[in-house]
Amino acid sequence: MARRETAAGPGSRALVVDLIRSSGPISRVELTEATGLTQPSISNIVRRLIDDGVVRETGATIATGGKPRTLLTINSRAVFGIGIQLGVENAVCIATDTTGGVFGRQLLDGAGSGEPQQVIERLARDYRGFLAGLGIDETRVAGLSIVTPGPIDLQRGLVIGPPSMQRWVDFPLRDALAELVSVPVLVDNDSAASALGEFWSRQISRDATYACIYMGSGIGAGIVAGGALYRGASSNPAELGHISIDAAGIECFCGNRGCLERYAAPPAVVAAARAHAALSRELGLDADTERSFDSIARAAVQGHPAALELVEASAGQLAVATLSLANLFDIDRMTLAGWGFAIAGSIYARAIRNALDQRAFARRAHSVTVELSSNPRDTAAVGAAALILQSSLAPGHGPSMIRSH
Amino acid sequence: MARRETAAGPGSRALVVDLIRSSGPISRVELTEATGLTQPSISNIVRRLIDDGVVRETGATIATGGKPRTLLTINSRAVFGIGIQLGVENAVCIATDTTGGVFGRQLLDGAGSGEPQQVIERLARDYRGFLAGLGIDETRVAGLSIVTPGPIDLQRGLVIGPPSMQRWVDFPLRDALAELVSVPVLVDNDSAASALGEFWSRQISRDATYACIYMGSGIGAGIVAGGALYRGASSNPAELGHISIDAAGIECFCGNRGCLERYAAPPAVVAAARAHAALSRELGLDADTERSFDSIARAAVQGHPAALELVEASAGQLAVATLSLANLFDIDRMTLAGWGFAIAGSIYARAIRNALDQRAFARRAHSVTVELSSNPRDTAAVGAAALILQSSLAPGHGPSMIRSH
Repeated sequence: MARRETAAGPGSRALVVDLIRSSGPISRVELTEATGLTQPSISNIVRRLIDDGVVRETGATIATGGKPRTLLTINSRAVFGIGIQLGVENAVCIATDTTGGVFGRQLLDGAGSGEPQQVIERLARDYRGFLAGLGIDETRVAGLSIVTPGPIDLQRGLVIGPPSMQRWVDFPLRDALAELVSVPVLVDNDSAASALGEFWSRQISRDATYACIYMGSGIGAGIVAGGALYRGASSNPAELGHISIDAAGIECFCGNRGCLERYAAPPAVVAAARAHAALSRELGLDADTERSFDSIARAAVQGHPAALELVEASAGQLAVATLSLANLFDIDRMTLAGWGFAIAGSIYARAIRNALDQRAFARRAHSVTVELSSNPRDTAAVGAAALILQSSLAPGHGPSMIRSH
Repeated sequence: MARRETAAGPGSRALVVDLIRSSGPISRVELTEATGLTQPSISNIVRRLIDDGVVRETGATIATGGKPRTLLTINSRAVFGIGIQLGVENAVCIATDTTGGVFGRQLLDGAGSGEPQQVIERLARDYRGFLAGLGIDETRVAGLSIVTPGPIDLQRGLVIGPPSMQRWVDFPLRDALAELVSVPVLVDNDSAASALGEFWSRQISRDATYACIYMGSGIGAGIVAGGALYRGASSNPAELGHISIDAAGIECFCGNRGCLERYAAPPAVVAAARAHAALSRELGLDADTERSFDSIARAAVQGHPAALELVEASAGQLAVATLSLANLFDIDRMTLAGWGFAIAGSIYARAIRNALDQRAFARRAHSVTVELSSNPRDTAAVGAAALILQSSLAPGHGPSMIRSH
């Protein structure tokens, strides 16, 4: 890899915050060495971070023979980021502190088929109740981030798909929600948020070329390369679910044919299981896709032959597509996240590891580490909150936020 | 897109050189505005570039009412970069000046099946003859760059595939060649070099998320995002030819199954044509893959039904895979380069444009511009030379070079 560029530009503040967060207590001298920035630059940045309440001195010092070095740490409860992952059936709301640690969690109703304006009015009420329950005053909230499946319009802060959220197309989600709360609001892609959240919380090296495979009602991926989220032309990259695995296959809502997620994502697996009346009854499948997929996944893990066959077929298809993704992005580290991996994640991880070990194009140059998220159902919401903290700690970076008050 | 970061770090010199090259004569004040760097930073960088002979003052000035502004331009003949694209059958050698303009070109024999050491001794002789023919003294050569199909080991400067170059696996190409010439040597991937070369020579915006699809004996792609070549974990990204288009398909040398290039690349098209004795005779196919593919492509463009059917099948398969690539990288601009597109490029471009217009995931967010390279057979060699100039103009960036003398 080329040497990382470092200079006292707008990215420096984010870099310094990132180093303080990931290193534990650290001195200004060590920051100078780690960043390549000059000592006056580091002093300036640190002074402003302390003034803003983001960083504090621990009180401890290191004796060096010369002037003792004061240690710096993140002021974890200075501000909170709130992330909401909005799905059709469910939504998850998460509060994280500035270290990226989860401070509170609540399960909410999803978007359903209601009017978007009514749904966000409910979400705004839920958000206020969530803060009240945690005892967080809204003045300490850096922002509210709402993430959904793509495609999204990052600049305008709205959802332009998928069909399960057709009513939301062109609804000004970010701006309408900003009218209802007293903090800045941003809208982003659930896979991108997951990647950022996992990257932070797992303290993945900035040298890694990292993919977070996100499987919920659809399949997506977020990529972090050189320490930065890969955004592409319109913040709609890495649509893994829309790799065609069969050029003559079934039509997808996206306009393409034979898209992976039409065969391998939980709704397809559940539909295949429902087609067998006996299996459907035995596993107690109902109208809720997530709950039904959980039942199939649980049976598969316990060795139920029909359920295992369905999950293994899904895992095999996902593995082939993930191998293509790895060959295109030259990935060396990967996490599986999202509710689709919550129960049968190990079956998916095994299929993906096998495919990568035996067939990855660059396997003679490097291996690919595949891990399961430790918190797969919440990843996107945690990442959404991380996006808020990233924007508020390093203004000018990441998606734009609207503050209406 | 997030605001571009600019600061007086090691990347600033490259940025300034890039702006002077792409803008035409430009003043220091305009550079300050375009980069966001301070005026003293710009003055320092420009002074050093002039001292190094990379940039010169044109002598012209702009009257502004205040102090007249001196215009700066690239000192085009200050140094030359030499690029060699090494294929099995052919090799192309290119000299470019600091503006990226082609100063000389020569067709050489490819790697064939000879001993690597003998092949590079011949290449070193060819290189010296090439310089002599152009009247370039070796002291004015910034370096020699040799590019091949992947996978490569960028750090060690060697080729670790493909099977057509099996003898080269673990041969220390860069270091052995550096023993034979008096300039620094680097080894890189032909697709990456193509992408960089097209990005420079077409003056593509740094805001574009750009893919160069490279089709020669194999199919690859190079990606430029945010003005920088996407490198991945090991500089082996965007192996478009190794997307599986049929999970149960034929085995590929790479270990995967159903890889695109086994069906759609020129060797596969030529093999399909050779299987028809009459067609093979009619088109005058011989043992040379590139020449034979040219015959098929020429017949297809002229409307020969059997040839057209073969080329359109290849184009259709490439279009499906390119759509997957665009969905993963969220591409908004694309060039088709490499000898595979030299004659029937328009047939491929049409198939790819149709697929992207009708089926790209983010098509409601943005379109994808698809263009043909203006110099498809030389793209990789031109890009190889551009890699040299990039490394020598902006030291510390790009792949490492070995200088043995």
